[in-house]
Amino acid sequence: MRKFIPNIFSKTGAAPGTLTHIGERKDAKTVITVLNYSVDRFYEQQYDTIEEALAAIDSSMTTWLNIDGVHDTAIIEQIGRHFNINALTLEDIFHTGQRPKLEEYENYLYLVLNMLHLDENRDEIGSEQVSLVLKNNLLLSFQETQGDVFEPIRERIRKGNGQIRTKASDYLAYALIDTVVDHYFVILETIGNTIEALEEGLLQDPTADTMHKIHAMKRELLYLRKQVWPIREVISRVTREELPLIHPKTGLFFRDVYDHIIQIVDTIESYRDVLSGMRELYLSMLSTRTNEVMKVLTMIATIFIPITFIAGIYGMNFKFMPELDWRWGYAAVWGLIVLIVLLLIAFFKHKKWI
Amino acid sequence: MRKFIPNIFSKTGAAPGTLTHIGERKDAKTVITVLNYSVDRFYEQQYDTIEEALAAIDSSMTTWLNIDGVHDTAIIEQIGRHFNINALTLEDIFHTGQRPKLEEYENYLYLVLNMLHLDENRDEIGSEQVSLVLKNNLLLSFQETQGDVFEPIRERIRKGNGQIRTKASDYLAYALIDTVVDHYFVILETIGNTIEALEEGLLQDPTADTMHKIHAMKRELLYLRKQVWPIREVISRVTREELPLIHPKTGLFFRDVYDHIIQIVDTIESYRDVLSGMRELYLSMLSTRTNEVMKVLTMIATIFIPITFIAGIYGMNFKFMPELDWRWGYAAVWGLIVLIVLLLIAFFKHKKWI
Amino acid sequence: MRKFIPNIFSKTGAAPGTLTHIGERKDAKTVITVLNYSVDRFYEQQYDTIEEALAAIDSSMTTWLNIDGVHDTAIIEQIGRHFNINALTLEDIFHTGQRPKLEEYENYLYLVLNMLHLDENRDEIGSEQVSLVLKNNLLLSFQETQGDVFEPIRERIRKGNGQIRTKASDYLAYALIDTVVDHYFVILETIGNTIEALEEGLLQDPTADTMHKIHAMKRELLYLRKQVWPIREVISRVTREELPLIHPKTGLFFRDVYDHIIQIVDTIESYRDVLSGMRELYLSMLSTRTNEVMKVLTMIATIFIPITFIAGIYGMNFKFMPELDWRWGYAAVWGLIVLIVLLLIAFFKHKKWI
Amino acid sequence: MRKFIPNIFSKTGAAPGTLTHIGERKDAKTVITVLNYSVDRFYEQQYDTIEEALAAIDSSMTTWLNIDGVHDTAIIEQIGRHFNINALTLEDIFHTGQRPKLEEYENYLYLVLNMLHLDENRDEIGSEQVSLVLKNNLLLSFQETQGDVFEPIRERIRKGNGQIRTKASDYLAYALIDTVVDHYFVILETIGNTIEALEEGLLQDPTADTMHKIHAMKRELLYLRKQVWPIREVISRVTREELPLIHPKTGLFFRDVYDHIIQIVDTIESYRDVLSGMRELYLSMLSTRTNEVMKVLTMIATIFIPITFIAGIYGMNFKFMPELDWRWGYAAVWGLIVLIVLLLIAFFKHKKWI
Amino acid sequence: MRKFIPNIFSKTGAAPGTLTHIGERKDAKTVITVLNYSVDRFYEQQYDTIEEALAAIDSSMTTWLNIDGVHDTAIIEQIGRHFNINALTLEDIFHTGQRPKLEEYENYLYLVLNMLHLDENRDEIGSEQVSLVLKNNLLLSFQETQGDVFEPIRERIRKGNGQIRTKASDYLAYALIDTVVDHYFVILETIGNTIEALEEGLLQDPTADTMHKIHAMKRELLYLRKQVWPIREVISRVTREELPLIHPKTGLFFRDVYDHIIQIVDTIESYRDVLSGMRELYLSMLSTRTNEVMKVLTMIATIFIPITFIAGIYGMNFKFMPELDWRWGYAAVWGLIVLIVLLLIAFFKHKKWI
Repeated sequence: MRKFIPNIFSKTGAAPGTLTHIGERKDAKTVITVLNYSVDRFYEQQYDTIEEALAAIDSSMTTWLNIDGVHDTAIIEQIGRHFNINALTLEDIFHTGQRPKLEEYENYLYLVLNMLHLDENRDEIGSEQVSLVLKNNLLLSFQETQGDVFEPIRERIRKGNGQIRTKASDYLAYALIDTVVDHYFVILETIGNTIEALEEGLLQDPTADTMHKIHAMKRELLYLRKQVWPIREVISRVTREELPLIHPKTGLFFRDVYDHIIQIVDTIESYRDVLSGMRELYLSMLSTRTNEVMKVLTMIATIFIPITFIAGIYGMNFKFMPELDWRWGYAAVWGLIVLIVLLLIAFFKHKKWI
Repeated sequence: MRKFIPNIFSKTGAAPGTLTHIGERKDAKTVITVLNYSVDRFYEQQYDTIEEALAAIDSSMTTWLNIDGVHDTAIIEQIGRHFNINALTLEDIFHTGQRPKLEEYENYLYLVLNMLHLDENRDEIGSEQVSLVLKNNLLLSFQETQGDVFEPIRERIRKGNGQIRTKASDYLAYALIDTVVDHYFVILETIGNTIEALEEGLLQDPTADTMHKIHAMKRELLYLRKQVWPIREVISRVTREELPLIHPKTGLFFRDVYDHIIQIVDTIESYRDVLSGMRELYLSMLSTRTNEVMKVLTMIATIFIPITFIAGIYGMNFKFMPELDWRWGYAAVWGLIVLIVLLLIAFFKHKKWI
Repeated sequence: MRKFIPNIFSKTGAAPGTLTHIGERKDAKTVITVLNYSVDRFYEQQYDTIEEALAAIDSSMTTWLNIDGVHDTAIIEQIGRHFNINALTLEDIFHTGQRPKLEEYENYLYLVLNMLHLDENRDEIGSEQVSLVLKNNLLLSFQETQGDVFEPIRERIRKGNGQIRTKASDYLAYALIDTVVDHYFVILETIGNTIEALEEGLLQDPTADTMHKIHAMKRELLYLRKQVWPIREVISRVTREELPLIHPKTGLFFRDVYDHIIQIVDTIESYRDVLSGMRELYLSMLSTRTNEVMKVLTMIATIFIPITFIAGIYGMNFKFMPELDWRWGYAAVWGLIVLIVLLLIAFFKHKKWI
Repeated sequence: MRKFIPNIFSKTGAAPGTLTHIGERKDAKTVITVLNYSVDRFYEQQYDTIEEALAAIDSSMTTWLNIDGVHDTAIIEQIGRHFNINALTLEDIFHTGQRPKLEEYENYLYLVLNMLHLDENRDEIGSEQVSLVLKNNLLLSFQETQGDVFEPIRERIRKGNGQIRTKASDYLAYALIDTVVDHYFVILETIGNTIEALEEGLLQDPTADTMHKIHAMKRELLYLRKQVWPIREVISRVTREELPLIHPKTGLFFRDVYDHIIQIVDTIESYRDVLSGMRELYLSMLSTRTNEVMKVLTMIATIFIPITFIAGIYGMNFKFMPELDWRWGYAAVWGLIVLIVLLLIAFFKHKKWI
Repeated sequence: MRKFIPNIFSKTGAAPGTLTHIGERKDAKTVITVLNYSVDRFYEQQYDTIEEALAAIDSSMTTWLNIDGVHDTAIIEQIGRHFNINALTLEDIFHTGQRPKLEEYENYLYLVLNMLHLDENRDEIGSEQVSLVLKNNLLLSFQETQGDVFEPIRERIRKGNGQIRTKASDYLAYALIDTVVDHYFVILETIGNTIEALEEGLLQDPTADTMHKIHAMKRELLYLRKQVWPIREVISRVTREELPLIHPKTGLFFRDVYDHIIQIVDTIESYRDVLSGMRELYLSMLSTRTNEVMKVLTMIATIFIPITFIAGIYGMNFKFMPELDWRWGYAAVWGLIVLIVLLLIAFFKHKKWI
């Protein structure tokens, strides 16, 4: 079953601020990428150790420090010390499975998002925590695994496409968030296609299997809504509150992200309504079919049971049964049978069963 | 299946502000119409190139620049440069399928609406994006295809009917929005008639087909509500906030539009309730009918099965069956059968089945 | 079917402020009544022409000008010019079928209400628009048809009962609104009685007809709620906002009307819940009955089918069937049959079917 | 049926402030009790006439004037004149069946509550209006009938238990309200017990009667919620607004009452959810049972119908039926029958029916 | 049945502030523990009498006074007098079964929480009230029974793990609340596992028993939500309002607790949705199975009833039945039977039943 509980509780009773990584431990090495850029230049380099990476930061440019893999506590702690990040924030970066949120600290903004992807093998939605720490001309991004989701943004920085090189780290944060949110649409489209296929299948031949799939799909949408809903609030706060680290002009772009989130939430609700409608449709189709099956049974039984009774009567072995000796007795019985059948057919017609 | 996802996501990862037309590409040529008017004069002209059109604007009059077809990026970009329109706005004009919204910029107001129409062939609601850019004495309107929806307004300007020539571009914006919203009523009326027909059909003869139609209609209403709901918010902001480009007197007119939107939303909800009620009615009618079918079957079976058994008994070939030799045995069996039938009928009457 | 759409849309595209009467045209003549009153005097007179009526207004007294019938555009326009009423207001007076609303203009307050009445013939709720224009010591009231709903208030003015003659036109507006709202209770009571009758019928004998009536009643309540809901908002604004034309002391009385509206809305919701409960009860009663019918059928079939089989066996015509020649064969078969029946009865008892 | 409409409407059209008692007229005499108390003294006396009672008020002490029976208009009017109470308030005291509310007047606070009690005979919740008028060191309480609900408070005053004698009239109001609210818990407990019994009955043997009782109980809870809900708002206002007549320290006590009301509302909602769950459980139990009944029928019919057919075949009287003359024909038929039965049992096992 | 009513009402009519313990009286002795700590030192001691405990408080350090068992009124009263605690607060400590709440008094903060635990024997959620009184450098905690839930915190104080020894009593309050809330996750996980098991069972073999368990689980979740919901409000107030006794830095930690509470509430809602989905799935699986059972019955009956009738016909004993004497009569009957069976099978294929 899809787990609805986050894995936070596994540290029940432990002191807050204890830095233990919680979540599925990935064996992959932590990869640190530093990307310094300004309007006219950019340097990009992958590092093995955090010391080298921190040394590579050029404070005269905008820096994007991306960390793939959050299981190495030592690295995160070192980053925390270097950038003066609160222990609670570090804890949230470690303990993946956080609810999306925005937290304002004195010298930085902390944002948690969920990157969703369809798990091909298990036909389920997978979730990965992305943490962003936004400082004045620096953005730290933490991902659970190494992925190429942010590759198009790196490409835009490299090629200087669009406005990204002319803008500060808040715009970079916007670009990352926008990418994460846009990926939800991809998932929604896959779900939409699956629902469409299910609905066509349902209309052609409603089977119990369709119901199981509808049930499973509803569960996935429940999970999706639980993931997306808090993001709405996060982005809404970014556009509503005047955060010192977000330039008002970048705020305009976040308004755009907010529109997308609203559309995603709306679409999830619509899908849930559609699935509910399909379940209702399935049940009423089933009722209709049961009703039809019953009618067939009833008609057959109602026609044959009485005439079988008549045949039974004249199969009795009584000594004195005058009808048996009549010349036209047998023909009369057939006549009676035909009469009964005709009457019953008239009755069914009257009842609109045929 | 009706698509519930907008087509925004297809540009995932692209830089915002990239001007690519998203939406079904229409081959029709872009048509540009310029209409200058004041209380006592008006000029109207269609142009092939945007340069000619821009040259035709008379700044001493109120100007309505209407563009039919938004797939020609070059034209839109040129307009954007000429009127100093933000790249995000231009993007929204291109990427049709936007959620209705109102955005306030320094020097203009940007409004997105959905024009709905019933697609005759596919029996579905079609949607077309209408973008309005309101400046001081200028209104730009962008439609996806060439339509004659706004023809009555052009006629009113030409003939000088009503107040339209005496008012500024904000009133023109109101007139366009009012026309778009009034068209929703036309769609609602068609839906209302279809529901009425469905309901009559349901009450006369509930079939599985009716259920399928109810299901499809619910889907259309879901879609309609998704289209109309955000407009409510847009118009509400126009009436609530003191926008510098909307004269307070024109605000009174928008209050009227708001009333209409509320009525539309109310009516959609009522229709949904009515359809839900019809589904419930269908199911209970079906249950009632199944119950009746069952009763018929049960009565027939309950009456004939016992008496068939009796006939079966005296059809046995035992050597020693004293009843078979009795003079009135056969008559006695008939007596017994009649007795059983009468008793069972009494039982059914007691159970109120007949 | 009850129409849920207002008839506003029929003027799609027409210029706002165009004065065309929309609604069922009544042939009855427009009747204008002027009632001037102060603490110690009152004049009352019906007029045929609006000129005479306007001349009869005594500005030193409080005046109630009542117009029955709003199809005569000329009269309404003349009144509008005389009292300096906005074109949008005049339009709303004409176009009956408005949603109840309160609009504040510079020199008057405009209120739209719905007077409801039970249409005896069609067993439906009928609605009639009442428009009130409240000025300093003047109240204009517009009704669609001539009715005697406000007669008790006229009587109170004539006889000087209560406080009405000692108060200004705002109190008169309150009195009219109170009368309209109180009439909703009458309708609610009729509905309550119908529901009560339906429920008793349901408990005694659930038929498909009851379901149809429940369905129809739900539709009427849907319509009623749609009519009453906006009035709540209107009255709430009167009590909440400090309107210059409503004296704070009269505001106290409106608080009373607000209480009534809340009770009406509550009662409608309760009725809807009761009807939903009745539908559920009907369905579960039906399921119970189907279950009982099935049990009877199953018991009869389960008992007689096996023993009929036994009789069938010994009705076979095989040459070599030793049992047939046994002296006590027939008796043994009867014994077997009795045994089977007893065992099956025990089985049914065990299953708690009997 | 439980009436959901208040009896206010019966005076439709009458002038507000007209003092006519509305509600079931009780023949019992109006009983007036005056209780003067201070920290060290108290006088208590019942009076027949209002003049004597008013004379007995000692302005140097806190006075509780309790009136049992509100049908005698003269008495209420006299009290109104003496204490300068608004006509609207007097009207509300008369017209029992008011929605609970709090009204602030210049010189007093007016509170309406509903005292609920279980009507033993009719198994329904009965309601009685309690009106409180709170003045500076005086509390007027009006009850519809003479009851001993407030007896424990009188006892506390007499014996000087708790803080009541040391506090002012606002604390007395709190004590009365607290008593009224605490009585709701008694009703809730009775309902809880009934639901518990119903649920146990349901789990043991689901009958149609249980459904009727669940339906009736839901109706009572609907009524109860309608009674309790507005009280929440009343008490909330007392704790939230700074009312001049309520001392902040007494406000703390009202916070307690508010907690209780919230618990009551919560509990009612929980009960409604439990009842809904029970209805669903009943329906699914019924479906399960119908399914089981159907299985039994189907198994019996499926086994015996084919073998009965075989017996029927060899009961035919054709001249040329070779099997009939075979030595082992009869035995072969039995073999065939046993084979069919075994195959069908295997089929049922495969279908998991047995 | 799970009781949804608190036990407050049992003191109906009693004076507030009367100190009587309400709740299940536990016989265990009251255990008082005093823990004084500062950054560098800590003393811990259990006491039998409250006097000794109070004497052991070291005002130069932070003190945690924990009382296990609240049935001994004398002890609580003594504490109340010593720390100047309001009578209403003391009453709430006694009367266990309070709704979680936060009350601000002049010199202390009062917090009520519910500690939940799964009752192993009865498979139900048990609840225990934890009351916290937060003063300047002192925290009083009251538990109903002696438990080791807070042991990890004591351990952290003893060993000086984390920040706890460096912080004031407000941080200690946070630590206790965090522990209580974290325990909800444990319960949620157990519930999640149970639901998972139920769902697997349901998909494999839907039985009535599964439905009973779903019903029971829904009841438990209803209870859980009722317990958790008010805590959300309590913690929200701690983070929102600037309470003088909570240091802003500790407020950050409470924000974390708030996140957890929101996740818990979300998860409960998700579980309820999942259970509702399972119920729907069960019903549709049942309907599908009933439909299948009906199909089998109908096919068997429809095939055999007509051919049994034919056999019955030729079992009649009429003297003149020409077919009986035909040489190929018997073979012809078999031919007819096979024909009928083939036709019916074709009919079922057409109906898609097989």
